[in-house]
Amino acid sequence: MTKERLYLFDTTLRDGAQTAGVEFSVEDKITITKLLDNLGVDYIEGGYPGANVVDTEFFEKDRTKNATFTAFGMTKRAGRSVENDPGVQGLLNSAAKAICFVAKAWDKQIEMAMGISQAENIEAIQSSVEATLSAKKECIVDCEHFFDGYKSNPDYAISCAKAAYDAGARWVVLCDTNGGTMPDEIEAIVTHVQQSVPGSHLGIHVHNDTEQAVANTLAAVRAGVRHVQGTLNGIGERCGNANMISLIPTFALKKPFCDELEIGVGQKELEGLTSLSRQFDELLNRAPARQAPYVGASAFATKAGIHASAILKDPSSYEHIDPAVVGNERNVMVSQQAGKSNLLTVLERVGLKIEKDDPRLDQLLRKVKEREARGYSYDGADASFALLARRTFGQLPQFFRVESFRTSVERRYNANGDLITMSEAIVKIEVDGEMLMSVAEGNGPVNALDLAMRKDLGKYSDRIDDLELVDFKVRILNGGTGAVTRVLVESRDNTGERWFTVGVSPNIIDASFEALYESVTYKLMKTES
Amino acid sequence: MTKERLYLFDTTLRDGAQTAGVEFSVEDKITITKLLDNLGVDYIEGGYPGANVVDTEFFEKDRTKNATFTAFGMTKRAGRSVENDPGVQGLLNSAAKAICFVAKAWDKQIEMAMGISQAENIEAIQSSVEATLSAKKECIVDCEHFFDGYKSNPDYAISCAKAAYDAGARWVVLCDTNGGTMPDEIEAIVTHVQQSVPGSHLGIHVHNDTEQAVANTLAAVRAGVRHVQGTLNGIGERCGNANMISLIPTFALKKPFCDELEIGVGQKELEGLTSLSRQFDELLNRAPARQAPYVGASAFATKAGIHASAILKDPSSYEHIDPAVVGNERNVMVSQQAGKSNLLTVLERVGLKIEKDDPRLDQLLRKVKEREARGYSYDGADASFALLARRTFGQLPQFFRVESFRTSVERRYNANGDLITMSEAIVKIEVDGEMLMSVAEGNGPVNALDLAMRKDLGKYSDRIDDLELVDFKVRILNGGTGAVTRVLVESRDNTGERWFTVGVSPNIIDASFEALYESVTYKLMKTES
Repeated sequence: MTKERLYLFDTTLRDGAQTAGVEFSVEDKITITKLLDNLGVDYIEGGYPGANVVDTEFFEKDRTKNATFTAFGMTKRAGRSVENDPGVQGLLNSAAKAICFVAKAWDKQIEMAMGISQAENIEAIQSSVEATLSAKKECIVDCEHFFDGYKSNPDYAISCAKAAYDAGARWVVLCDTNGGTMPDEIEAIVTHVQQSVPGSHLGIHVHNDTEQAVANTLAAVRAGVRHVQGTLNGIGERCGNANMISLIPTFALKKPFCDELEIGVGQKELEGLTSLSRQFDELLNRAPARQAPYVGASAFATKAGIHASAILKDPSSYEHIDPAVVGNERNVMVSQQAGKSNLLTVLERVGLKIEKDDPRLDQLLRKVKEREARGYSYDGADASFALLARRTFGQLPQFFRVESFRTSVERRYNANGDLITMSEAIVKIEVDGEMLMSVAEGNGPVNALDLAMRKDLGKYSDRIDDLELVDFKVRILNGGTGAVTRVLVESRDNTGERWFTVGVSPNIIDASFEALYESVTYKLMKTES
Repeated sequence: MTKERLYLFDTTLRDGAQTAGVEFSVEDKITITKLLDNLGVDYIEGGYPGANVVDTEFFEKDRTKNATFTAFGMTKRAGRSVENDPGVQGLLNSAAKAICFVAKAWDKQIEMAMGISQAENIEAIQSSVEATLSAKKECIVDCEHFFDGYKSNPDYAISCAKAAYDAGARWVVLCDTNGGTMPDEIEAIVTHVQQSVPGSHLGIHVHNDTEQAVANTLAAVRAGVRHVQGTLNGIGERCGNANMISLIPTFALKKPFCDELEIGVGQKELEGLTSLSRQFDELLNRAPARQAPYVGASAFATKAGIHASAILKDPSSYEHIDPAVVGNERNVMVSQQAGKSNLLTVLERVGLKIEKDDPRLDQLLRKVKEREARGYSYDGADASFALLARRTFGQLPQFFRVESFRTSVERRYNANGDLITMSEAIVKIEVDGEMLMSVAEGNGPVNALDLAMRKDLGKYSDRIDDLELVDFKVRILNGGTGAVTRVLVESRDNTGERWFTVGVSPNIIDASFEALYESVTYKLMKTES
């Protein structure tokens, strides 16, 4: 059976830019375009030239090698010609190879929000499409609010879609702009629309307001559309757009899609999906979602002891796909519930090949359980677990020793009557028999300690140059300031690796210092040759 | 038309506890059970008594008022009687009103992972159900891997479900344990199963591995099941379980569900959904997801200028529901009006009756927005909001003033060669023109400051005698020890009231001290006669 082609249209740089807190520079857009172009999507919608300076500059050149470089904009205004509409002229004169127009399809919107007639709206669609084809560009028409429009006035909504198709649009995209439509409604409406526009010219664009953007997209594809719009990691206005990172492996691996349809993303690119998703989060300066389908750090993680031993016998018992296919990995966690088989898997992951009957395994397991009873948690702190294991197996040198530290915070009114707070720390470290003492100020006692400890590590100083603290989480375990404190520190370096270390103590400063010390030690361990 | 009842089964405390990084104490479980019980779910699965000390202690008492308190466990082992199976006996003897057994339904698993015969598995299901009914408890059977089992051997999978039903189980729950099943498969399989077990006795339990847990649950309900399992905010093993927080408003507000089905969550509880979701994240000490459907801070946020003005003309143009129905709010830059009516409600709650056109309302609104931009969050800190409001309306005396404080932490080896850490704090306070200076040691700098500040409050000392710190949470807002820190303190006193105060600063000690100071001030305010 020959497979039908399914086209992927990425709108990360356009609809994704509507995400609260996200703002792309031209440089960001260039970087993301490269990621998408290598992934194998068919269209990259880069923005709205004319709407702001970033997008206008971005569309001065064609930025893609493989994908069709696409500009977004509004159909021409009613009451003026395409030639006299500066918005449309800006699109036609940009470096884009395709133009994606947003067109109204909801009778209520046309009358109320735009104040034009239904016929004027149809004419605007037609002439915008025709002008695009005359400019030798491919034309795509997003029918905004299509599903709400259909429920209000099906004939008119369909006539908008049909007008775009008849005028020569390559794709007519049905949009669930408000995100409130259910999958079965999508399927029924898409089926009906195909009496007027063939599925091979229909697309789908949905939002995640009921947590069903992926399901709604798949429902439309099952019903016949052959073009899907989405964004990396599902960013987008409100609850986000359909998540390309979940859709791509579903199309590639799940029936009936993988049997009947073909996408432009190859096997090798699929193996890069986890890394791409995390790179994109890096760019947005946010921590990747651990629970993200297919690509999250927890997507193939197992905590329960019984599940862990079953998974080692037969991975398909708790894994719906082989994680390697999307570049992810199995993650059997060490926790209260862990057994020995769990432990062996984790040890292998951190580079320790241990025999099943090595007596030190029991020793390590006891240590883990004893420390977890005291408040440590290793399922979120792989690096600390790796250090604990190496210490137990005698494979960790003591790079440096902390002799003592002191930190103080003082708040008072200064000579000008301003309230000021000063934090200072002194750390005394022994490296190779030599005592090094450093002092630093910080914007808090932990920050000051961190700076003081890393200020001078003697011969190791060069090796921690690129160590950077990303996040710092504090959890009080029994309630009240008198309880046990667990601190989790996330670090990264220039290789792009992120690691997590943990510290526990009744004293928040001790716990923080332990996690910081572990992070530095892990960095030294991994740079040991 | 009379509506059919749809039953909600919450497994936050059981399957949700499989989430990487999540560990519940007994106290946590009690707090979460209260939230769920007030929400109106029908079943609260509290854990697995016998599996660990926390769950065993939790099941010593019935913890619910409205919902059915449910224990999870395995069906009896093959080759021994129910009477001789300590696991099953533990369940039967617990305070649970219902038992939810996990039973195998996949031929491959039974033979490979368990090494028993298909008939032995069926017998284990039957006798476990029968023993539960004899113990006068309700019985629920989770058919693990049901959908994978059905694809491998439909007759056997169905015979497991039917055995549970025939033995008297109130609910037979079909589980997509690996999370790889598509909604249309779910719908078809559920339809077929109903030839053997009626939908009024069927449930659905799915995971989010293809980002379709919500859609899969809805597909099963459309096909006829009347019991759905899920978790708060969709926590759970790997990519999580079906998200109750997305399912509940969909059942309550979306067709065909709201027309045909009735759930135990009323209109008032629905209005508390946003707050509940955020409280749960607070408990997990993690930031609520902004893009979360229905309840996220961005769920009704509009960034695009054109969208923003359209939304003011007609909210339905970019909102699929009225955000107030789920206790959320529209987030458009110009929504002062919505903000103000909100504010009046909250003020009334903290005992301040203010006129709608009082100019100080604008002042307070500005203050709140300005402080939230700096990292404060009043969602979880009612007491701090009450103080801010009273300060703005000139209704808060300054009970005492902190002139200065100093705290230090020192770690060193003592004369015996033991590593010790000492924390000390000095606080200088002015009460009625008199300077009081106190010093205290604590098991950390914050504890020491707390003790020193409360040691001598002059004439107020008696009024804070019963003030007790319950919990103390720290969140770093921008990542790294150099970022802004938000501290949330929970306090209580002999009246049983609990209150939350917040402090924000780049310095963790300053932020902690602010939250402690606010807590003491709140206690003084509420004892002012």
